[in-house]
Amino acid sequence: MRVLGIDPSSRATGYGVLEFTEDRYRVLDYGTIKPSRKAPLHDKLQEIKAGVDGLIDRHVPDEVAIENPFYAQNIKTALTLGQVRGAVLVAVAEHARPLFEYSPLEIKKAVTGYGQADKGQVKVMVKALLNIEDDDMEEDASDALACAFCHLNTRLFQKAVEDSKI
Amino acid sequence: MRVLGIDPSSRATGYGVLEFTEDRYRVLDYGTIKPSRKAPLHDKLQEIKAGVDGLIDRHVPDEVAIENPFYAQNIKTALTLGQVRGAVLVAVAEHARPLFEYSPLEIKKAVTGYGQADKGQVKVMVKALLNIEDDDMEEDASDALACAFCHLNTRLFQKAVEDSKI
Repeated sequence: MRVLGIDPSSRATGYGVLEFTEDRYRVLDYGTIKPSRKAPLHDKLQEIKAGVDGLIDRHVPDEVAIENPFYAQNIKTALTLGQVRGAVLVAVAEHARPLFEYSPLEIKKAVTGYGQADKGQVKVMVKALLNIEDDDMEEDASDALACAFCHLNTRLFQKAVEDSKI
Repeated sequence: MRVLGIDPSSRATGYGVLEFTEDRYRVLDYGTIKPSRKAPLHDKLQEIKAGVDGLIDRHVPDEVAIENPFYAQNIKTALTLGQVRGAVLVAVAEHARPLFEYSPLEIKKAVTGYGQADKGQVKVMVKALLNIEDDDMEEDASDALACAFCHLNTRLFQKAVEDSKI
């Protein structure tokens, strides 16, 4: 099973493509989509959407996992984040990929065992769990891989429970 | 000049297509895009985006005007509204239409002369100004026409100022 994890943000939307085959995780891709700083808002959103389109076309993930914030600093931040999420979700829907959402708490717990972990701790654990050697890895990318990892883990656990019923 | 006005909302995104030719306004289309209630969020957003795609393809507006809220009741509402705006803005950007944003205050002032007017008052004035006889007109549609009207008026005023300079 191949999963695309996405951590939406207006400045840098993180992504990570993770696969579970032959009893191990494989990292296929990760990085960030950074729209042109000076572009008008709607063009920025279109760049983010086009970026996600490209990732889905290239990696053909079975499922997509996205962080679902229940919190934002203020109304303005929430509107901005919502707009980026809208652009990402339209891309996922246009490719008819099943979508799964996880709270920041669920994602942090899945990789660090601790729901209040900061982005730095998440990055350290993601690199350790997935055996990534990359000093320049961005935190938005590790957050996205954490989201994909959280979803794959949930899926594997569900499968283990199903198998044990036989 | 032909303008598509949009009033984004998750339940019913209003739209209105307005043209100014031969010294008068012409209403070409108006209504609402209502995504399937029971569809998952990303499919709803995709339905809204496809609706806007269709409107732009059909009417080929020169410019698009959208209401830009600086206010939402709470973080959850702001996230939801942001997502719908994201879907709409991606459609506008994909068609390379110039986008203009107006605050609710500017829009209300343009049609009623009063920034605190309610949706009912906006509807009454939109129907009067644009000579629309329709007892079933939805308020989301009249809000969208008000937004298009606000933009066309701004444009006509700009043109009048330019012309008077000659």
